[in-house]
Amino acid sequence: MINAGETICAPASGTGGAISVIRVSGPGSLEICGRIFSAAAAGVTPEGLKGYSIVFGEIKDNEDVIDEVLVSVFRAPHSYTGEDSIEISCHASGFIIRKILELLIRNGALSASPGEFTQRAFLNGKMDLSQAEGVADLIAAESSRAHRLALSQIRGAFSDEISKLRADLLHFATLIELELDFGEEDVEFADRSELKEIVGKALKMAEGLTSSFSIGNAIKNGVPVVIAGQPNTGKSTLLNLLLKDDKAIVSDIPGTTRDFIEDTVVIDGILYRFIDTAGLRNSDDTIEKLGIERTFRKLGEASVVMLVADVNEGIMHFEEVLQKVRNENIEPKRPLLILVNKTDNDPGGRIEGFKNFSLLRENEQMLFISAREGTGIEELKKKLAEVSGLSLINNDDVIITNIRHYEALSKVTESLRRVVAGLNDKLPDDLIAIDVRQAIHYLGEITGEITTEEILGNIFRNFCIGK
Amino acid sequence: MINAGETICAPASGTGGAISVIRVSGPGSLEICGRIFSAAAAGVTPEGLKGYSIVFGEIKDNEDVIDEVLVSVFRAPHSYTGEDSIEISCHASGFIIRKILELLIRNGALSASPGEFTQRAFLNGKMDLSQAEGVADLIAAESSRAHRLALSQIRGAFSDEISKLRADLLHFATLIELELDFGEEDVEFADRSELKEIVGKALKMAEGLTSSFSIGNAIKNGVPVVIAGQPNTGKSTLLNLLLKDDKAIVSDIPGTTRDFIEDTVVIDGILYRFIDTAGLRNSDDTIEKLGIERTFRKLGEASVVMLVADVNEGIMHFEEVLQKVRNENIEPKRPLLILVNKTDNDPGGRIEGFKNFSLLRENEQMLFISAREGTGIEELKKKLAEVSGLSLINNDDVIITNIRHYEALSKVTESLRRVVAGLNDKLPDDLIAIDVRQAIHYLGEITGEITTEEILGNIFRNFCIGK
Repeated sequence: MINAGETICAPASGTGGAISVIRVSGPGSLEICGRIFSAAAAGVTPEGLKGYSIVFGEIKDNEDVIDEVLVSVFRAPHSYTGEDSIEISCHASGFIIRKILELLIRNGALSASPGEFTQRAFLNGKMDLSQAEGVADLIAAESSRAHRLALSQIRGAFSDEISKLRADLLHFATLIELELDFGEEDVEFADRSELKEIVGKALKMAEGLTSSFSIGNAIKNGVPVVIAGQPNTGKSTLLNLLLKDDKAIVSDIPGTTRDFIEDTVVIDGILYRFIDTAGLRNSDDTIEKLGIERTFRKLGEASVVMLVADVNEGIMHFEEVLQKVRNENIEPKRPLLILVNKTDNDPGGRIEGFKNFSLLRENEQMLFISAREGTGIEELKKKLAEVSGLSLINNDDVIITNIRHYEALSKVTESLRRVVAGLNDKLPDDLIAIDVRQAIHYLGEITGEITTEEILGNIFRNFCIGK
Repeated sequence: MINAGETICAPASGTGGAISVIRVSGPGSLEICGRIFSAAAAGVTPEGLKGYSIVFGEIKDNEDVIDEVLVSVFRAPHSYTGEDSIEISCHASGFIIRKILELLIRNGALSASPGEFTQRAFLNGKMDLSQAEGVADLIAAESSRAHRLALSQIRGAFSDEISKLRADLLHFATLIELELDFGEEDVEFADRSELKEIVGKALKMAEGLTSSFSIGNAIKNGVPVVIAGQPNTGKSTLLNLLLKDDKAIVSDIPGTTRDFIEDTVVIDGILYRFIDTAGLRNSDDTIEKLGIERTFRKLGEASVVMLVADVNEGIMHFEEVLQKVRNENIEPKRPLLILVNKTDNDPGGRIEGFKNFSLLRENEQMLFISAREGTGIEELKKKLAEVSGLSLINNDDVIITNIRHYEALSKVTESLRRVVAGLNDKLPDDLIAIDVRQAIHYLGEITGEITTEEILGNIFRNFCIGK
């Protein structure tokens, strides 16, 4: 950390609004603040105050009053960073904020790097590395599911799992090392069945966490849902309905090509990314073909495919389209929701035709809707959560959302698989010990027991200034 | 005020950043907060805390933890609004902010209207109306001059002036009313020369404040400077230099027509709005003529005109251009800075020609610059401040910046002029008393001693939410 031992400062709140908060942390916080602040009450100074108290007064540049502010005082170790800290709450003017930061720096503070407050909290033992990472996730969370995951990570649920796993492996390592110590006497100390049981349990736990990443990622970044279907089946009407129906944040993300528009929407606490594709159509025209190829390529990015059909077109025609989608929806097969649309306008018997269609595969479900009238939409929302795999999650489930954790846990899993194989193949203890130590190492990287400047740099450089 | 007696809440800090502040004010603040907040320390509640203290804990929706927050407690009357208030400092996530506001509202708080916190501060006697208006100005201040004016207004320098003026007029009114009471006895109580002295002093003060508005407005909204000159004299190079040279905020404001671009820049604490005009040129072409007409129209909006000349064109040619600008720069005559540019490239004797030009008028000054090499620019900046009238201002001068104050003071001035005339014409006391009372009324409107829902509505509706 470049600023170790120094006092740092940064704006902590966003731009605009009525008030802004400037954060100062480090051993000189109170003294530096004391130099630029005069309390309204005579004889009061930030240095004279106990932690968790507030004082009103003026920030001054010599005799020039810069602003009337509130100063909140926190004393080590009872602060976010674990250091002496102050927060200056000033009027939300860019001019004032710049001026106060300038004064702080002129009086000995340094400008904080991105994430440096949280990095200090980590280095001072206020939180472990995965908890620190949860802070950034919490701020970015857009849906209640993502929010809950990030908060649970900050509050240590994930760290607890990792600690349990680590404790088991350390126990395992102790047993193995004991054997090694007595290796020359050719004594097999540890009961190998006990070793197998320990590592088997650990592997299961590691595999579980690793595989939770796909769900964690869907919760954090949104479930990608491709909407496919022939032109004029009502895809756009459906999309607009889903977007409008919910009061949550809706934003436009331009797709990778101009042919695709991604819309994100939160439905029942889950963030979805709806990808609207060009209509599916048979065509000999090269340009048209390109569009269709892209549609199929998009199917590959989806977690869920919604195929919209117009009930008026009839089941015979639809089977052709379905077959085309099936041909593209190859391994891993995505759940396919077939939405028979325009049910408000059945020319007669068409709905029955679809209802009697018995050739649905295991990953396919058929729903009857009218996007125009909004019928069947609640059912569709429920099904979406279900096929996304997000409706089954328990609030207490520990789910990983961070690619760094995913990578480390993948390596833990690999190492543990080698341990299991080694035990089965009766490999020598010293070879097995290497893999166990590796697994322990990767677990330590997650929580930060083992860390490098590089790992820290990578993590905190993505934080915002003031965090 | 629609929410009188209620507890209100709103986000107080801007979007983005690491932390966000939510403000709650009103009699129920502590109780409502107590319902959704659990302190980390057992047995601690916001209601149990004294003012100016902070408590760490969780915001909860029943059992669901929404965020870990700091709650700052303020108790009436020692708060911004003068009411019991709390500030919740949470993670800067839109999701969390919405959720906390929703919880506050569900537990009895109302969503605050724009400026409602400041309006309450006014209604509770924490500040007068002109001080409240200073708060919005302070937040918007972009230059050190504007900042200083707004802060001085918040701190009551302007209110003090108005109070002095009002006290004098009340004294005057008392004397007049005394005369009226004894009117039937035909006694002339008050010494009319004393009356004349009092009102003369008051009038001078009111006139001074009224006329300070043009300077106050220039400080607050920027000094409009038109850059004129023929094509290729280096106007754009000069403008870019002025914009780039300073580290202050530079922003593009699209002009009223596409022909003009306004650039704002802070130079030595003063905000300027540079208006670049199309080149001045003689033309028979109708379209061209329109452009030139617009240029001249822009001159009318300027406080200062900078006329850029190319030294290579020679003094004879320049005189023609100057004459055209003079013809347009009619009453009130703006200061005209003639900038003889490209002095780094004098083909010989041309600079001398300009230097010997002796036909400058009182409002005109000539400077020699090279926009390309940056020479003469410091001198130009000094002159700009000087001719803008802003270099003469004393830090302690009371200057009005608010059009509402300007309008009220104009009416005060008018009334007082009628009083002076009335005294001179020996008008009866009761007629004079009417005008004095009117002047006092308008002064009361400024500070809010006399106010209406409509005035308050107009003032606070321009504030941001949370202020």
